[in-house]
Amino acid sequence: MISHRIIATDGAARFGVLHTGHGDVATPAFMPVGTAGTVKAMTADAVRATGADIVLGNTYHLMLRPGAERIAQLGGLHRFMDWPGPILTDSGGFQVMSLAKLRKLDADGVTFQSHLDGATYRLTPERSIEIQHLLDATITMVLDECTSFPATSDEARTSMQLSMRWARRSRDAFQKRDGYGLFGIVQGSIYPELRAESARALIDIGFDGYAVGGLAIGEGQATTFAVLDATVPHLPTDAPRYLMGVGTPGDIIGAVQRGIDMFDCVIPTRAGRTARAYTSRGVFNLRNARFADDAAPLDPRCACPACTRHSHAYLHHLFKAEEMLGPMLLTWHNVQYYQDLMRDLRTAIMDHRLDAFASATRAGWMPEEPP
Amino acid sequence: MISHRIIATDGAARFGVLHTGHGDVATPAFMPVGTAGTVKAMTADAVRATGADIVLGNTYHLMLRPGAERIAQLGGLHRFMDWPGPILTDSGGFQVMSLAKLRKLDADGVTFQSHLDGATYRLTPERSIEIQHLLDATITMVLDECTSFPATSDEARTSMQLSMRWARRSRDAFQKRDGYGLFGIVQGSIYPELRAESARALIDIGFDGYAVGGLAIGEGQATTFAVLDATVPHLPTDAPRYLMGVGTPGDIIGAVQRGIDMFDCVIPTRAGRTARAYTSRGVFNLRNARFADDAAPLDPRCACPACTRHSHAYLHHLFKAEEMLGPMLLTWHNVQYYQDLMRDLRTAIMDHRLDAFASATRAGWMPEEPP
Repeated sequence: MISHRIIATDGAARFGVLHTGHGDVATPAFMPVGTAGTVKAMTADAVRATGADIVLGNTYHLMLRPGAERIAQLGGLHRFMDWPGPILTDSGGFQVMSLAKLRKLDADGVTFQSHLDGATYRLTPERSIEIQHLLDATITMVLDECTSFPATSDEARTSMQLSMRWARRSRDAFQKRDGYGLFGIVQGSIYPELRAESARALIDIGFDGYAVGGLAIGEGQATTFAVLDATVPHLPTDAPRYLMGVGTPGDIIGAVQRGIDMFDCVIPTRAGRTARAYTSRGVFNLRNARFADDAAPLDPRCACPACTRHSHAYLHHLFKAEEMLGPMLLTWHNVQYYQDLMRDLRTAIMDHRLDAFASATRAGWMPEEPP
Repeated sequence: MISHRIIATDGAARFGVLHTGHGDVATPAFMPVGTAGTVKAMTADAVRATGADIVLGNTYHLMLRPGAERIAQLGGLHRFMDWPGPILTDSGGFQVMSLAKLRKLDADGVTFQSHLDGATYRLTPERSIEIQHLLDATITMVLDECTSFPATSDEARTSMQLSMRWARRSRDAFQKRDGYGLFGIVQGSIYPELRAESARALIDIGFDGYAVGGLAIGEGQATTFAVLDATVPHLPTDAPRYLMGVGTPGDIIGAVQRGIDMFDCVIPTRAGRTARAYTSRGVFNLRNARFADDAAPLDPRCACPACTRHSHAYLHHLFKAEEMLGPMLLTWHNVQYYQDLMRDLRTAIMDHRLDAFASATRAGWMPEEPP
């Protein structure tokens, strides 16, 4: 069991602390994505230095390589990747559908071929929970089907109902342990009545936290927010709420305003590897020639090494010269920017000035320039 | 001017401190190579954490990109790469000969095309010194011709004599400043009388330090050591001696025993990017499948993050998964191993037990396995 203590609220938004067996997580929280047992281009020390309390691991990648049983034998994912703090793992289902070859879904689970070597694997709710147990995940996610977008109401209902059956099987398979938790995932595409039905079904089963899935897959921010407006009121107030795979800083701010407590997204790390910098003044591409002689720091408000030690010109040079230090420094910066945003959101909620903070933050962003 | 204070000797070997305007360097010293303004895959903080006092920058790479004048305008290489400590830059000559296209050597200098974009550049002794001044190099190297191996005695003499004329022009062009130094480079291939003649010519001109060039280019360790035996006795005892581009741990130990004080080499960083680990037990390739389940640290005697936080199995996984953290951690480790070796060599010299230390260290290395 894990518990979520709400310390302050501001509108629908909440500032809280998630207590887990691997440590506390201040919420709203952003979880850097450590796909294959590493937050790409960062040491665990660097991830900690940004203020991140929790990271995410991907069951799909880890089950294929190096293998869940191997990680268990090596002492679990925490020891493997030098992250003693909380780790949330996804169920593997999303990546099976987006990465695996020859995938075949049936009522019991999904069979697929590894994108690495073509070997055949089978993932069921029970096996997904077992893998996450082997990884020693602090927070385990139920196996679900991420309903594709767009979907008709009938398609969305059928898919959601499958996910609800799998949610119950996941709950049954999960071994309750003190300090560990299991989250259900609300599906239902863009349909408010399906989202509500899914939320009720999950509450009926009973979880330690509730995720909103099936978003950030092309529906657009307005629709994401509309689905949150139709979903969050149906979720328990005392449990943490996790919006999966979201998103840009603007997405996160809007979702926090709608009562979401946890996020994960590859944007800060992926952008860091492709020279895109997230800053208090907006998003910039450091390959742009106008930065070649710019002695100013990337973001004077940021305390990361890229900003305190180096210039735009140096970062520009590193990317032009294809030096690994470019992705290393910019990933660190972007993750720092995200963690600073979460800290500022928490403070704003505590000070009951979230809407003003949100407006001022958005107003500081210049329109993104073309790459 | 810079000065080298000898604190202890053991046979031909010396333990000393090189005083520079950017800080002190304990010798024998290994300089990690920061080719393009970055020690590849390491932050400057990580390089400092290994105990390195000084790094090397490559004039050829930096003059092409981002350009010496640009770096000067941005405050010099120290500020650019966040390395306030001493920096030694090479003259650019070696890389012109190994990397540039359509290079043409004449008595006055060398004209070449950039390997990056084909643009034509000209490097003379005066321009090389000017570039290194623009970079704000703590230690500047004269422009020389690295005599290729093998070379006949006549070829080696002609080449060495050209280098000696360029050494005088480099000395004339160099602006003496307190805390900065200029090193000459002994050439003469494998011929003892040419090496002695070259050393005398350089001493006649007068330098702050003396490098031995034209080695580690295929002649083999026994020949390298024979050339050192024939060269070092002709060098002043009070000036630092720098063996350029060397080498393996075994090369370094043997050269320290022969009185060399400074080294640079890409081996630890390049090996780190290709999964080759230098350890107290020898050289290992971490891609080898036998490491997949190995929970032991890479080198229990090493204090770097790769060794204190992770297992062979994790490092193996990172390289198999082509995660950037693999090269990051292993580069850090290899540079740490080299710096630890230099520290141990200094201690052994001070304790007058260098030969015993050298034998014991070599005895600890297992034969290298095939990749």
